[in-house]
Amino acid sequence: MKKALFIGFGSVGQALARMLLANADRLQRQGFGLRAIGVFTRTKGNVADDAGLDLGKLLGDVESGNRFGRPACGMTSLEACERLDYDVLVEISPLSIGDCGEPALSHIRAALGRGRDVVTANKGPIAFGYGELKTLAAVHGGRLLFESTVMDGAPVFNLAALCMKGNEITAFSGILNSTTNYILTRMEEGVALDAATADAIRLGIAEADPGNDIDGWDAAAKTAVLARVLLGADVTPLDVSRSGIGDMSCARLQDALKRGKRWKLICRGWRDGDMIRASVGLEELDKKHLFAGLDDFDSAICIESRLMCPNYIVQKGPSPMDTAYGLLEDLLSL
Amino acid sequence: MKKALFIGFGSVGQALARMLLANADRLQRQGFGLRAIGVFTRTKGNVADDAGLDLGKLLGDVESGNRFGRPACGMTSLEACERLDYDVLVEISPLSIGDCGEPALSHIRAALGRGRDVVTANKGPIAFGYGELKTLAAVHGGRLLFESTVMDGAPVFNLAALCMKGNEITAFSGILNSTTNYILTRMEEGVALDAATADAIRLGIAEADPGNDIDGWDAAAKTAVLARVLLGADVTPLDVSRSGIGDMSCARLQDALKRGKRWKLICRGWRDGDMIRASVGLEELDKKHLFAGLDDFDSAICIESRLMCPNYIVQKGPSPMDTAYGLLEDLLSL
Repeated sequence: MKKALFIGFGSVGQALARMLLANADRLQRQGFGLRAIGVFTRTKGNVADDAGLDLGKLLGDVESGNRFGRPACGMTSLEACERLDYDVLVEISPLSIGDCGEPALSHIRAALGRGRDVVTANKGPIAFGYGELKTLAAVHGGRLLFESTVMDGAPVFNLAALCMKGNEITAFSGILNSTTNYILTRMEEGVALDAATADAIRLGIAEADPGNDIDGWDAAAKTAVLARVLLGADVTPLDVSRSGIGDMSCARLQDALKRGKRWKLICRGWRDGDMIRASVGLEELDKKHLFAGLDDFDSAICIESRLMCPNYIVQKGPSPMDTAYGLLEDLLSL
Repeated sequence: MKKALFIGFGSVGQALARMLLANADRLQRQGFGLRAIGVFTRTKGNVADDAGLDLGKLLGDVESGNRFGRPACGMTSLEACERLDYDVLVEISPLSIGDCGEPALSHIRAALGRGRDVVTANKGPIAFGYGELKTLAAVHGGRLLFESTVMDGAPVFNLAALCMKGNEITAFSGILNSTTNYILTRMEEGVALDAATADAIRLGIAEADPGNDIDGWDAAAKTAVLARVLLGADVTPLDVSRSGIGDMSCARLQDALKRGKRWKLICRGWRDGDMIRASVGLEELDKKHLFAGLDDFDSAICIESRLMCPNYIVQKGPSPMDTAYGLLEDLLSL
């Protein structure tokens, strides 16, 4: 029975809690059990109990709009990471670009520095601090897993690590930000950027402040994570050549459609001699391109390698359940 | 340094030999080495040498149209599997449906019965004998890996086994026979079935006798393998509800195109209560369907599961190199 500390309990954390509860019997038969000993949040309060918290009760609190009840804990999130007794830190606080991955980066640093394992769906700390965190994990004997930082639960990092052992990845490209792909799809139908953005927020896919999506920062963070992990580059989101979708118009999207094309926000990483290049930007794709067939919240990645033809992974219609599954898969890998 | 016995040395075996030679240094740094101690074929002769065969020389023989030179070996393929001293059997003889996976099934049975490891790109033995072979491997301590039996080197079985540990697959569907997908693509352009088939043979993708492709047997064998391994079904290719493309006409394909549809040969497996169903047949897909975007030799699989949205794996333009890579990946997994 692993003791887990949760930092963050938004839609992904709640989906993970529901998944753990609904599949408890099957997971137990696989020899897997998790005891939540702390849940720390920005807006719902903090609770901690070494004997184990009742995730069902916490879900009830959230669903009824209440803050968490007892046993309340006066520590900060960082203090919890530094002092509580846990086996694995589940870091699912929101992405922060402006603060270069903080405070999640400090949370993860504290856990790894104590030799604890970390699973995270937060791409910020990996995008900004992967090199340092990897070293910390190696020195202190912890593990750092982050499958759900890109394409939710769809296997990307596990696939590269476990299923491409004899190969060398040379480039990747993808549609990795669901919010902008949804907005572009709606704008092709004539819905203005602002209205489409509001819809994405109402559907719960975009965050309340969708600036990170619109400006390409979320995509740049994912691109940095992929460039670091798949290509061994030393880049942060700030190093990714980046443009967003803020200047795109319905008319331009519809004009492309008439010509059999679609504009898509494409993330790329590739080797250029000894350099690794990374970019995020709108590209006009021919309708025959696999990426041009992706609507709404779909996402996809193409992995190019020395020993295989291009392989694509595509997910159709992901939800927070998929991100939660990525975390569960990482927890099972530990 | 693992000692390998090769049964079969056609386009896939030759691609694997080239890959091993071209990447020898990199693989050695990964701690991997392979010594071919026997190569047995139907048409090129048999050679065996415990000190190791020169794969470059064998490739030279094949390329110049000669049979293998010395050291010739008078054993049959089956005797080689039973008697030679090897660590891993690389079974890459052609698919046989009429003989229910033989003679490859006997080769693999002999190797596993001696506690040896087996990697194979031949779907016949897995489609007809997976249950027995799995038991043999478990009893005698060998391993049986077959990534390249479906979608060449693209990770399907490794992905399910290594990247979906906490999940349960509920259904799969796919375009898994490249030859028929190529033929259908050409027929949409007005090329008749026979002429398109001849082109596929000339391009080296279809076998000299493409009946297994046209009649859906190759697809049924892959469907049986997937139903067994992903869904735990006890089915052979003979149990798969099957129809091929022999009755399709250019006119019907082109009529569908005009209506925004495409006919594709689709493999399916799904749970139906306590039963597992499996089928292969032509389906008219809407152009928006991801599978409708696959041309020529492309292939794809959709995996549906309890805890994730549908995930697709797509490969664009595979060649025998991709199948060879699947074998290399399996060899590295051992």
